[in-house]
Amino acid sequence: MDPTAESRSYTASIAYDRRLYRHDIAGSVAHARMLAKQGIVTDKEAERIVMGLGTVRAEIEDGTFPWLEDLEDIHMNIEARLHEIVGEVAGKLHTARSRNDQVATDTRLYVKEAASDAARAARGLQTALLEQAEAHLDTALPGYTHLQRAQPVLLAHHLLAYFQMLERDIERLQQARHRADVLPLGSGALAGSPYPLDREFVARELGFSHVSENSMDAVSDRDFVLDYLSAASVAMTHLSRLGEELVIWSSEEFGFVRLADADTTGSSMMPQKRNPDLAELARGRTGRVYGRLMAMLTTLKGLPLTYNRDLQEDKEGLFDAVDTLESTLAAFTRMVSGARFDRERMAAATEAGYLLATDLADYLVRKGVPFRQAHGAVADLTRYAIEQRRRFGELSLDEYRRFSERFDDDVYGVTVQGSIAARDVPGGTAPARVAAALEAARRRLAESEA
Amino acid sequence: MDPTAESRSYTASIAYDRRLYRHDIAGSVAHARMLAKQGIVTDKEAERIVMGLGTVRAEIEDGTFPWLEDLEDIHMNIEARLHEIVGEVAGKLHTARSRNDQVATDTRLYVKEAASDAARAARGLQTALLEQAEAHLDTALPGYTHLQRAQPVLLAHHLLAYFQMLERDIERLQQARHRADVLPLGSGALAGSPYPLDREFVARELGFSHVSENSMDAVSDRDFVLDYLSAASVAMTHLSRLGEELVIWSSEEFGFVRLADADTTGSSMMPQKRNPDLAELARGRTGRVYGRLMAMLTTLKGLPLTYNRDLQEDKEGLFDAVDTLESTLAAFTRMVSGARFDRERMAAATEAGYLLATDLADYLVRKGVPFRQAHGAVADLTRYAIEQRRRFGELSLDEYRRFSERFDDDVYGVTVQGSIAARDVPGGTAPARVAAALEAARRRLAESEA
Amino acid sequence: MDPTAESRSYTASIAYDRRLYRHDIAGSVAHARMLAKQGIVTDKEAERIVMGLGTVRAEIEDGTFPWLEDLEDIHMNIEARLHEIVGEVAGKLHTARSRNDQVATDTRLYVKEAASDAARAARGLQTALLEQAEAHLDTALPGYTHLQRAQPVLLAHHLLAYFQMLERDIERLQQARHRADVLPLGSGALAGSPYPLDREFVARELGFSHVSENSMDAVSDRDFVLDYLSAASVAMTHLSRLGEELVIWSSEEFGFVRLADADTTGSSMMPQKRNPDLAELARGRTGRVYGRLMAMLTTLKGLPLTYNRDLQEDKEGLFDAVDTLESTLAAFTRMVSGARFDRERMAAATEAGYLLATDLADYLVRKGVPFRQAHGAVADLTRYAIEQRRRFGELSLDEYRRFSERFDDDVYGVTVQGSIAARDVPGGTAPARVAAALEAARRRLAESEA
Amino acid sequence: MDPTAESRSYTASIAYDRRLYRHDIAGSVAHARMLAKQGIVTDKEAERIVMGLGTVRAEIEDGTFPWLEDLEDIHMNIEARLHEIVGEVAGKLHTARSRNDQVATDTRLYVKEAASDAARAARGLQTALLEQAEAHLDTALPGYTHLQRAQPVLLAHHLLAYFQMLERDIERLQQARHRADVLPLGSGALAGSPYPLDREFVARELGFSHVSENSMDAVSDRDFVLDYLSAASVAMTHLSRLGEELVIWSSEEFGFVRLADADTTGSSMMPQKRNPDLAELARGRTGRVYGRLMAMLTTLKGLPLTYNRDLQEDKEGLFDAVDTLESTLAAFTRMVSGARFDRERMAAATEAGYLLATDLADYLVRKGVPFRQAHGAVADLTRYAIEQRRRFGELSLDEYRRFSERFDDDVYGVTVQGSIAARDVPGGTAPARVAAALEAARRRLAESEA
Repeated sequence: MDPTAESRSYTASIAYDRRLYRHDIAGSVAHARMLAKQGIVTDKEAERIVMGLGTVRAEIEDGTFPWLEDLEDIHMNIEARLHEIVGEVAGKLHTARSRNDQVATDTRLYVKEAASDAARAARGLQTALLEQAEAHLDTALPGYTHLQRAQPVLLAHHLLAYFQMLERDIERLQQARHRADVLPLGSGALAGSPYPLDREFVARELGFSHVSENSMDAVSDRDFVLDYLSAASVAMTHLSRLGEELVIWSSEEFGFVRLADADTTGSSMMPQKRNPDLAELARGRTGRVYGRLMAMLTTLKGLPLTYNRDLQEDKEGLFDAVDTLESTLAAFTRMVSGARFDRERMAAATEAGYLLATDLADYLVRKGVPFRQAHGAVADLTRYAIEQRRRFGELSLDEYRRFSERFDDDVYGVTVQGSIAARDVPGGTAPARVAAALEAARRRLAESEA
Repeated sequence: MDPTAESRSYTASIAYDRRLYRHDIAGSVAHARMLAKQGIVTDKEAERIVMGLGTVRAEIEDGTFPWLEDLEDIHMNIEARLHEIVGEVAGKLHTARSRNDQVATDTRLYVKEAASDAARAARGLQTALLEQAEAHLDTALPGYTHLQRAQPVLLAHHLLAYFQMLERDIERLQQARHRADVLPLGSGALAGSPYPLDREFVARELGFSHVSENSMDAVSDRDFVLDYLSAASVAMTHLSRLGEELVIWSSEEFGFVRLADADTTGSSMMPQKRNPDLAELARGRTGRVYGRLMAMLTTLKGLPLTYNRDLQEDKEGLFDAVDTLESTLAAFTRMVSGARFDRERMAAATEAGYLLATDLADYLVRKGVPFRQAHGAVADLTRYAIEQRRRFGELSLDEYRRFSERFDDDVYGVTVQGSIAARDVPGGTAPARVAAALEAARRRLAESEA
Repeated sequence: MDPTAESRSYTASIAYDRRLYRHDIAGSVAHARMLAKQGIVTDKEAERIVMGLGTVRAEIEDGTFPWLEDLEDIHMNIEARLHEIVGEVAGKLHTARSRNDQVATDTRLYVKEAASDAARAARGLQTALLEQAEAHLDTALPGYTHLQRAQPVLLAHHLLAYFQMLERDIERLQQARHRADVLPLGSGALAGSPYPLDREFVARELGFSHVSENSMDAVSDRDFVLDYLSAASVAMTHLSRLGEELVIWSSEEFGFVRLADADTTGSSMMPQKRNPDLAELARGRTGRVYGRLMAMLTTLKGLPLTYNRDLQEDKEGLFDAVDTLESTLAAFTRMVSGARFDRERMAAATEAGYLLATDLADYLVRKGVPFRQAHGAVADLTRYAIEQRRRFGELSLDEYRRFSERFDDDVYGVTVQGSIAARDVPGGTAPARVAAALEAARRRLAESEA
Repeated sequence: MDPTAESRSYTASIAYDRRLYRHDIAGSVAHARMLAKQGIVTDKEAERIVMGLGTVRAEIEDGTFPWLEDLEDIHMNIEARLHEIVGEVAGKLHTARSRNDQVATDTRLYVKEAASDAARAARGLQTALLEQAEAHLDTALPGYTHLQRAQPVLLAHHLLAYFQMLERDIERLQQARHRADVLPLGSGALAGSPYPLDREFVARELGFSHVSENSMDAVSDRDFVLDYLSAASVAMTHLSRLGEELVIWSSEEFGFVRLADADTTGSSMMPQKRNPDLAELARGRTGRVYGRLMAMLTTLKGLPLTYNRDLQEDKEGLFDAVDTLESTLAAFTRMVSGARFDRERMAAATEAGYLLATDLADYLVRKGVPFRQAHGAVADLTRYAIEQRRRFGELSLDEYRRFSERFDDDVYGVTVQGSIAARDVPGGTAPARVAAALEAARRRLAESEA
């Protein structure tokens, strides 16, 4: 390769930015119409350009577009082809527009769309979680802290915790979308345009709510990319937590969940293995999205105003994060929908784990035993039961009474169900609270669809 | 050290979490009042606890509090001291509360405050930028792309670009604050509380707008920390850009700005050196805040529900990011306020750089020369002027006419001022537009104070 | 605060760089001696300076040193105090030295030491692992892939995997040390010194193996900090993996390990909980070290030569990473030493999990069944056993024969022990191989001490 | 898509791992030969397999290979095709091998190669730097600290600073290569193999220096990927610094360098603009490589032993970092080779900047003026000259004498050349030192080729 070709290959972006073709064409159509409206080009000219752009789009979509690697980016490819189709008038499309405000416009259109898509995918996962939760309003499992069994909870309650996380993710994505929702076109190379543009018209045509207020900021701002990447990173954090739980719950030792065949792999030789590959990969891909965020932050660090070629690095990482987030949300939607939770294993773990110690202390307090004394008694009782390798329910009343005389027959009424029902505060795991939370979740989904 | 002491030293947080004393005490006061309101403790008991907590706070603030490193964290230090002050009743404060929902509450109170503080500091920097901008509505300098002179702009316009960035930063901080504005107290260890709590009352007492909707999420959620760290990272990105510009502009080669003595250092030997140390350090500290964000993301990755001790890592990085962001905003406020911009050096650079090439082409177009032809003529003209090492204004009309016959005497009217005035679109650098932007900025600041 | 004071507070480093006092003094002593040797100062002067520096060091170490926050850094604090102690001659110490080469020298001395310390701490953890491994040469547990039981292995083999990781960590730390082992002193501010220095002499005095070859590189290079941070990050990755395993193994569901009381916490109420707080915190602190690496990389990105104040950000993150790595290695050393592995739970898990499927297939192959056919038969057999909820050993010979006629009485000889013994390749889990690996590990530790 | 297809698409790696075809085939060939040597397969069978693999390789290289997306990865694609070519015997290739040790082997082969390639590319850039340095042994420019002119240096000296950085990069890459140079094949799925393998033979065949010592570590270790990514990140840091300098030096204000046309872009309209796009993009891509490192660190954090599907994420980021580093090294090689440094602009900046202040103080000291007094006099002198807007050389002797009576006619002998020549210590910028450094650099390059 000659030096020029090598350099061009280093700077070319056509391998990935062709993905912006729809946004680029939409931006050009709106620009052309505005130029005509303002009398900067004639209506005829604008019509011809718009028609030509329609042809370009059709060619790209039906696979007949003659991509040229030599034309480094999507903009040049489209321009060159437009020129072939409509002739000299194509050149007028570049009136009052620069590559700098054009590419910022394209990327903003893309981010707006991507944020909406990801929010929709998150709604999908919320739906899957909600459906499983609705089916498990009476399934108890241990709630864990430090991966140690702590207190019984409802599986529905556990699943709804993820619903909440996703709710925040959606809010974050919408805010990223909002931040992208500002039209930079009309900022020229950096100083604004000497032509009498109607920027509000272009904004309306393209569905932007605002026009940018400072041309120098407009061509060098990539905050909206960071906003998307931050939102995606936090969402991946949540998904990595769910992935970790699915991996742990799929282990033979826990045995709380059985993922669908499509979501696991095993060797032909070892049919007992149900490797939760999807959950693992999703967990692993969290790093990937974090990395993309880190990359963009680093790239932007210390750049003087206004446009610098470093900014070209905004796209590939963004596209990859978009693909990763959307496909991972879809993967979890399938995994959650297809999961079969093992009520018996969960129940056994809940009964086995001395999770009712707190409730026994509460029992004594209700019988009039001072707080501290009650705690001490139950701590001793638990230690005794552990040594005996027996559950609370398997101890005799005599044995209970060795630790406090206030224990009575009704101690056998201290149960997992009772413990759960007692957590009857807003946000608590009591069935009535969880049922209400399910309803609220349903409502939220319904509203979001409307 | 014995093993227990070594382990305790590894897990202790008192060295840094004492910073949360106000928030911890406020949370306890509200909790105690609610317990009394609900009849869980007597009014007397609550009063005594609240009084004791007041004493603790006073002791901390006047420096007489007996900190004990052995009590690993701020909560235990306060509890132990409260016990000394009010006796046994101190124990009742822990009724219906767990360390898990307590620490989440403290940290949320802290983040709400920190986000407001940072937003306020950002307003301060906006004010400084605005004041300089108002003083430089008629100062022209080259607008740069690729650090190459591209088109003349007003310094006011350039400075307002940073105003815009900070406006987004403030929005982000407010959203982080909003996400922190949810009360977790009442979630117990993870499942909710078996006591008849009035969580809404506690929320009102503490100024939270909402109570958490899922107890398991509430004790394991640290999104609000990520939100603050993301907002801080983007803000530092902006500041690093401003820092880079101040460094470059302070160079002898550019000479656009002279920072105040307090903001530079020099060797006694070399009084000509005005090292922009603050701007450099600020740029360097961008990495630090990015690192804190990455750290927290990594820490949260793959944690199963609910509370895990890993979460303790949420505080030190947060505190450091808060300190860094606030002090950096303050440093830039001082630097910008104290900066003296060199109008002459800026003017000379604007005149010298063939920045009017685009405007000359526009001149020819207005005279009826077809677009493409006009561009070609000016390109040739510029090449000629560069070879001659002369500015456009120094060429004779004859020389102009070598490139196009349409050039006339009025070509000497194509000036920097004319070029700037022509960018008369929303967001453009035309003086009227910039004046309007200044006014809008003023209004925004006034509103934010109200 | 007046502006100058505020700026100074932003740039001050004395809060953390006092940690370099030994290195700074050592560097000054060597420099003073060299100045005398070269006749640049008199022997008397050098003696006086060296004596004064000795006093400074003693004051710092016995806590009587008058630290002044106003003197921004460790160098100025020491210089000022030296001046008080020895008078005017103190000024001569600065001959032929600049702050730029001085601070680089200090930091390099520090990194050399820190790398050695961390390597030593890693040897400590290797020793703890080795001791546990030696005690568990006959303890079998399931080897996991995808957190699914896959094949039986020896616990000693499992523990030695971490020995290997640490071996690489030590190599990396030694390479970081090696890269720091270059003396920058004598590079002046950036261009070298106009005095006839003997840089080799200084290097010998300070224990540096090389002197820097380019003065501009010498004052702006912080690669050695990155090298340490990279090595620390990878080491923390390894420790996070071990931490994850300790957490999972501590769960009631796995029950493979019981950490010492000093290394766990529990509520008084729930004595059954043994929260592996140390392991969790260690896992969480992985993020912290990654963050410090990212911070330093970002800080260095895009800095022009030579010294820029951004470089001051090299120290705090480094110190924090050093503390985190060393304390985490120590914490794991205690945890591993104090851990009690539950042979029975491990054995039960190994027997229960159909881990011998592969070995049964090998059995059939040895009996002449073609590979593919053998695999199919065992897959069917396993599925059958799972359905029956019985282990392989609990199936009758008749049942075996339903799947292949080649099964015979000796199938009951296919055991966990047999499976392990069969992996008799270099690096395999066969007892003889593991015993040899233990011996090799012992040797390596012995050599490293020598 | 049906769920299985969607899941498969989420887990598929064939889109990128086909890049490992050579390594995968080489590994298989060595494995087959070893199986024959050990009598595990017949010589005939091995021959047939090896022949078939040769055909596969040829097909891939001439573009006729029938890639199947349905076969998720490169291994399955090759296996399936091999089966078509050689029939049943293809199945035997999988004897005593698992996907886990196979993919680790492939990736290690790849990293070894990539590290060597990058080191070679770095040698190329060193050569370009050296050639420019050799051409500029007598070109002076200001050495900068804080982007402020500080002391004169030779351009050759400045360029050699980057030579040194690259020297360390090469060392790091070689260490990464060394860490990858360990054969994992023979570790089976995790426990080792029950077959009598000759692992040393395979290692020799494939050019590995060592075989892995612990099978569980061998299948889960990805340190060598981190090592490459760390080395690449540090290298990119260096390149970002060089990029920044080229950007700054290309500005009209500095004007120190003119990059070749192939390495810059400009608008047709503004022929004076020489945008250093390559340098900017290279600087921007630094973030990308940092992000890949961060991603891999995050992915590995907290994974239990042994193989987990998360590990699949090791390849795409690695490939991208390899491509980025190699292409960026090549881009800089071209840029440096093609750069024309402007001696006059550099000289003017050196003369203009009061850079000789230190040398004037040294002059007075040599005349017997006490150190401190000399410094004070020169500081005053400099301030005076700045106010007068005159250079030192333009001041009259009378004016000099206002600041110290010891100034004499020979003060006009204090020159840039004299200042440079005085820095005559190892690593200093004195011409003799730099000439020696150039020779040493030449030698190093020659040795590395040998």
